[in-house]
Formats: sequence, C-alpha cells, structure tokens
Amino acid sequence: MFTKVFKTLNDNDLLKENDRVLVAFSGGPDSTALLYLLIKLKSKIAFDISAVHVNHNIRKEEALKDEKFCKKFCEKYKITLHIVSENIPLLAKKEKTGIEETARNFRLKSFEKLCNEYNYNKIAMGHHADDQVETVLFRLFRGSGRTGLKGMSIKRDKIIRPLLETKRTEILDYLKKHKIKYIEDSSNFENYYQRNFIRNELIPVIKKKINPSVDKSILNFSESISLEEDFLDSLTNKAVKKVVRVTPGRKFQLDLNLFNNYDLWLKRRLLRFCLFELSRSKTMPDKEIINRLVSLVEKNGKEISLPGKIQAKLDNNGLILFERFKNNYQVELPIGETVSLNLPNYKFYSCKTSLNSFKKLVKRNAFTIFLDYNLIKFPIYIRNINQGDRCRFLGMKGSKKISNYLIDKKIPKVYRDEIPLLFDQAGIIWLVGCEIADRVKVNKNTMRVLKIGCARR
Amino acid sequence: MFTKVFKTLNDNDLLKENDRVLVAFSGGPDSTALLYLLIKLKSKIAFDISAVHVNHNIRKEEALKDEKFCKKFCEKYKITLHIVSENIPLLAKKEKTGIEETARNFRLKSFEKLCNEYNYNKIAMGHHADDQVETVLFRLFRGSGRTGLKGMSIKRDKIIRPLLETKRTEILDYLKKHKIKYIEDSSNFENYYQRNFIRNELIPVIKKKINPSVDKSILNFSESISLEEDFLDSLTNKAVKKVVRVTPGRKFQLDLNLFNNYDLWLKRRLLRFCLFELSRSKTMPDKEIINRLVSLVEKNGKEISLPGKIQAKLDNNGLILFERFKNNYQVELPIGETVSLNLPNYKFYSCKTSLNSFKKLVKRNAFTIFLDYNLIKFPIYIRNINQGDRCRFLGMKGSKKISNYLIDKKIPKVYRDEIPLLFDQAGIIWLVGCEIADRVKVNKNTMRVLKIGCARR
Repeated sequence: MFTKVFKTLNDNDLLKENDRVLVAFSGGPDSTALLYLLIKLKSKIAFDISAVHVNHNIRKEEALKDEKFCKKFCEKYKITLHIVSENIPLLAKKEKTGIEETARNFRLKSFEKLCNEYNYNKIAMGHHADDQVETVLFRLFRGSGRTGLKGMSIKRDKIIRPLLETKRTEILDYLKKHKIKYIEDSSNFENYYQRNFIRNELIPVIKKKINPSVDKSILNFSESISLEEDFLDSLTNKAVKKVVRVTPGRKFQLDLNLFNNYDLWLKRRLLRFCLFELSRSKTMPDKEIINRLVSLVEKNGKEISLPGKIQAKLDNNGLILFERFKNNYQVELPIGETVSLNLPNYKFYSCKTSLNSFKKLVKRNAFTIFLDYNLIKFPIYIRNINQGDRCRFLGMKGSKKISNYLIDKKIPKVYRDEIPLLFDQAGIIWLVGCEIADRVKVNKNTMRVLKIGCARR
Repeated sequence: MFTKVFKTLNDNDLLKENDRVLVAFSGGPDSTALLYLLIKLKSKIAFDISAVHVNHNIRKEEALKDEKFCKKFCEKYKITLHIVSENIPLLAKKEKTGIEETARNFRLKSFEKLCNEYNYNKIAMGHHADDQVETVLFRLFRGSGRTGLKGMSIKRDKIIRPLLETKRTEILDYLKKHKIKYIEDSSNFENYYQRNFIRNELIPVIKKKINPSVDKSILNFSESISLEEDFLDSLTNKAVKKVVRVTPGRKFQLDLNLFNNYDLWLKRRLLRFCLFELSRSKTMPDKEIINRLVSLVEKNGKEISLPGKIQAKLDNNGLILFERFKNNYQVELPIGETVSLNLPNYKFYSCKTSLNSFKKLVKRNAFTIFLDYNLIKFPIYIRNINQGDRCRFLGMKGSKKISNYLIDKKIPKVYRDEIPLLFDQAGIIWLVGCEIADRVKVNKNTMRVLKIGCARR
C-alpha cells in the first residue's frame, strides 16, 4: 500500500520538499494509517508533519479515550499534536445548524487557524476510495447535481487526500500487517446514518446482485466527470465574464443578445451561477427554477418571482436577477474620511480641496463632485432614496421629485432603488451618479471646496 | 396525464401532422397507456397509428395470451396490428448471444423492417420516468460511464418516448381512471432480475432512508448530463476530424502534435472513440486501458498490446492504433469490372483504353496505372503481400524483395502490411501506391493499353 499511496502522491503532486503538513487525526483506521504512512515517507521526502485531533464532545467518555489514544500515538512517533476541543452539540443548538454541519465547520475553521498560526501549507485528510464511492452515491441520491458527483478532490486549496485511491480493505490490511493500533469505532459524523446505510447495506447488495466491482465503476465515473466538469466550469466562467454584469446593488444583469446564442446547457449553467451567487443560503437552485427562467427569456415574458425572495425581470437592459428587499441605510460621511457601504457596493470619501487645485486639476464627473464648503450644513449623511424625496438640482428653478427626475433621465426602474444620495442638515446635496443640488455648487464667491467621491469598493 | 404527455410531445417536437407512427405494443401497462393516449391524440393532430406486438416465444402459453389481448385491443380501436414472432431462446442459442440481447436486437430489426415496408417514420416506445431512473442507476452500477448515464433519449432517430417524463404511478392511475385493461405481468426482458431488484428493492429503500424524491434527483441529473454530454461529444467529433486519420487497413493514426495540446479529458475521449471504433465487440474501453495509452504517449514509449487484440504503437507518424491480425485475401480483378475489398478499404477497377487516349489524357500516378495489355497473362488477382514476394520494378535491372523495397522507400512498418498487390500469371504486376513491374510497362511497341485504378471505397 505504501507504494500505491506514494504513486498517488507523485501522480497528483500532493507533497513537496519543505511542505508543512497538518494531518487530521481522529485515531480511526483511515487517519491512523495516513499518519503512519506519512511518517514513514519522511525518509524519502524532507517535509514536516504535525497532527490535529478534534474532540467534538459528542460521546463524552469515548471522546476522551480517543484523545488519549492520539496523544500516545503522536508521542511514540514524536509528532506534534494539536488538540482542539469544542462542545459541538451546544454550539449546534446555539447556531441552529445540524450537528454534522457544525462539526464540519468547526473542524475546517480550526484547521485553518492552525495553518495560519503554525504555517502549515497542507492539510492531509484520511478519506479513501470507499468514502469517495459513498460520497458520490450519497450526492446522486440527494440530488446535488453534476457538480456534486465529482466527489471529493484529491487536492483542493490546502487540503490533500493521499488515500483517495486506496480501498478501505487495503487500509485495514496494512494496519494489521504493521500491527498498528487504531480506534475501532471512531465515528464519522457526516450524515452518519445515511452514509452507514450506503456503506453497510446498499453497496454490499449492489455488489452481490449487479456488479461486484460497482465501486470501481463509480470511481471511474466520478473521476471522468470531474475533469469534464472542470472544463465545463471554465467555459461557464468565461461566459459569465462576457454576459453578466453585477450592479452595485447586487443585481445580476444578463446581456440577452449574447445569452440567447448559447447552448441550453450553458444558459442553464449561467443562470445557476447567478442564482447561486444571489442566494443567501448558497444552495444550488432547482432544475424547475432554472427552467422557468429559461422559458421567461424564450417566451419574452416580463417578470417572475422565485423562491428565496429572488425576482427575475426582463427589460431593455436584459434579464435582471435580484433579491427583493427594501435596503434602508443611513451613515455619516465625516470630512476627510472614507466610508464603505456593503449594499449597494460603494465607498465614499470626502476631503477639503483648495480652490486653486480645484480650478487647475479636476473636472466634476458623475462620481466625483466639488461643492462650496461654506454652503454645506455639516454633518453629511449617505442614505437610500425615500419616497417623496425632492431636490432642486443644478441649474433648476424649482425643486423636483427624485422619482420623476430619474424617470425623465430614463434610468431603468430596477436600478433606481440602488442609487444612494447624500444630504446635509439643509437637505439633499447629491444624487450619486446623477446630479448635485444647485444650492451647494461652487460659485464665484466660493472660498473653500469640498471634494466628494464615490467608487465601487 | 394526457396534458402532461401532450406537453412532452410538444416541448420535444415528437409528433407532427402526417407522421406515421408505429407503437411498440406489449400489452403491458406502459405501452397500453401509450397506445391509448396516442389514439386519443388523433383528434388533435392528424397522424397515423399502427401497432406492433412482438412474440418472443419465451413464455409459450402466456405469450399467446398476450398476443390475443393485443389483437383484441387493436380491433376495438381499429388500429392496424403487426404481429412479429420469433423463437428467441433458440435464436439466442444459435447466435451465442444472451436472451435479452437477442430479443432486443430482434425487436429493433423487426421494427426497422416494418418501417421500411409500411413507411412508418416514428417508432413510439412506452418507456417512462421510472424506467429512466432504473436505467441510469443500472448503468452507473455496471460502469457504462458518462455516456450511459445520459439515460434513454426522448427522441433519437425514428424512436420517440412520449412517456419518458411520466411516472409509473401516473400511468397506472390513468389506466385505472379510464378503465383500460392491460396485461399485469408482461415482463421486460432486459436484465430482468437486476432491473427488478433496482425497481422493487433498491429505489424504495433509498427513498425511505435517504431521499423520498431520489427519482427526481436522478432524472434531473441525467437530463443535465445528457445535454452536456452532447456538447462534449460534438467537441470530441471535431477533434477526431482534426487528429485522427484512418488508413485503408483500419489503422487509426493520431497526430500527436495536435493531440498533446488537448485537455486530458479530451485526450481520453479521443482515445475512447478510436478504441471503440476498432473493437469488434463495440464495447467502451476500460479506464485503465485509456490511462495506459495516455501514459504511452506522455512517456514517449514505443508500443503496447491491449486487450481485444489491439496494438498501440508510437512512431514518426504519431500514435497508431490497430487490430493485430493477419489479413489474407486474394480476389480476381476481371477486365472491365470493379472489385471492392473491405480490409484494406479499397476498390479496384480495370478497363481497356485506346493507346491514343492514354497518350493524350492521362498521366500515371500512384493509384492509376497503365500497362501494356498484350504483355499481361490474365487473369489478374489482388492479394496481400506475402513474405518473400519479389519483383523487378519499373526501371530496375534485377528483382528485389518487396520488403526491402518498402524499407528503402521508407514506408513505415505499420502501413506496409496493408498495401495490396496485383499479379498476373507471370508474377507481380503492381504494388499499389508504389510501382508497377518493369515487364508490363507501356513501351513503343504497345498496341493496347490496360488501365487499372485503385481508390478508397
């Protein structure tokens, strides 16, 4: 098995000299074999190993026993062991997430923290080929779609999985042959019962009744789909860059002239990308939702409401996808400082400028303005447009409703609600990207100038 | 359900006016519902329906009962019914194929024959959504790879599957509601036991333990993979046209300068395409075999033998894939006639030409030759090169071994064995594509000319 894992490491370029590897070590057979193998490998490649054991405090007594085992093992082989502990059931209750999800998030966060603290550049996980088969089936049955069927990656970001091509039986044989002890019943929390069902009931019966090497079939399938999925992803990303524009208010605007030329599969992927990015829960949208969007575009409809408070609208600007919610905000913009908004995505800055440099250097544009400092009643605030807002804009005789002003300027309705405005203690001074108020303009009497700018963060 | 099937028909453009549809009618619930639905549909679309019932003679008594049921049903609705009968178990024995495969082949062949005879342009099959789910799982477990996971097509060549989006339960409900009788236990032969296991045991337990709508997940998956698979196929076909040249002897020659630039997934698909085309059994090659080929190319190896008597060779001409076998043939080429070879893929023709037209019109080239008719000792034969063959070629003083001649001409070894030669009763007269024998050349005394040509069929 050592040779096999060594080949996996080499073929996939998982380990290099001077790597600092953190091994996720539960004490179960997989991670014990992994840690032992990597220790042996140190004679071939010069790299550092440490281990981390996570105590989830789910099975109290046992959890302590597991911890002890890991300590002893690491002492024997002179490996640094980090022990991370958290009361997962309590945390899960607090955060209202499932035990499994909480445990996984906690593990990953802890690993990342250790990496930052101790400069580990690789995290080695003990997942093996049977885990992979179970993952693929689990995801197929749950409907996670093509992307999920790629299975786990042998290498992704810091994470490496050197055992991903090794079978469970090979690992157990190896441990037995080298007389290495491990914890028999260390449990994997992720979807414990469903995964156990797939492992212990489903796969054995499929092997018996349909194909004794069903695991090989599934592994081959997931490997081939994985490469092709990466390729399709890269095409999707290219198309996203061409077709999709995201407004500061996180509206996804799709250019239909380009969109309509794509194949159906690519249209679907583009839409899936946008909806995924828009969704708060970061879940893959249902096929039905994608189909509704496709037919909205094909049949040249007007507007549909989708689950997750997402709205899809067709107008002259193309297909626009956005979250339905009223975005109320109001923040101060102190002189000389920079203020960031999250939604809409902008940063503002203000500074006093001399009259001379104003005259010499710069022209006012839609996103950089110059005002008469002395005419402003500080403090200045930034807020969203409210119904009834009105202003006497530059050069106007009387005041005008902002909503009417925007209609006259032919700003499409969907974009109007994401325009911020600035006001001082006497009223509106700037409708961002549009116009300033007449009363604060720089004039022949201006002594001091205030420059305000706005840009995407 | 009528509305649903109508939508399926419309969305997928399955039926048009004046179509002549042949319905595969077993008498089971699926095909009975299908036939009944199509009959009702005739009030909306003007098209013709006939049915075909296949008696496989597997379950003697029952088979006759099924046949009777189908007759009665079609009489009632005034539908033409073709009955096709074959002793499948006997045929399977004779042809040494499995019962299921024999039955399927026989069915498809019979349908095709009826289409030709009666001008049917569509064959409607009763496969439904649950069949599709079972097919996808079955193929995943058996390892038929991505292509298999597309599932059955809703429309492919003449075949249409109007029920493919309808569930089994919907079909049964529909039959019950309309009080339509059907045969309860009409069996589907294809992988009977394994499919029944998936249907009756596997899917119910997955529904219970993992996801109640696992079927929807799998259908969505297979639909999305299907479109993307078509797209990847189209890219593969484009690459095949660029990279692969097939020699007359069915050697697949891959241009490595182009091949090496492709992504791994496309390399694999290209190789899979070639091996599939080469294989006599028309089976998808194993992942291991593809990997061996990829590493032959990457590591610049020389040659490997693959299962199915396939040989892979790397030389100046690129990667060459071919079947290892000795191709012995010998056929007469009568004057004025055309003779076709299958392997190597060539046709030959010979004709007498006047001396004048020879002088005026044509130049000899490697595949069209002119000989002195009177110098030939008819009949002429075409055969493969044998060891020890020798000839005194045009302009040579003595004779030379053909093998040495080809070496001197730098013809790569892999191509040499697919060069045919022609001989008359006095010996070799033409090594095709290379040279004629000196003794039969047109000379100043020539009275009559024989023209012989060779081209790809």
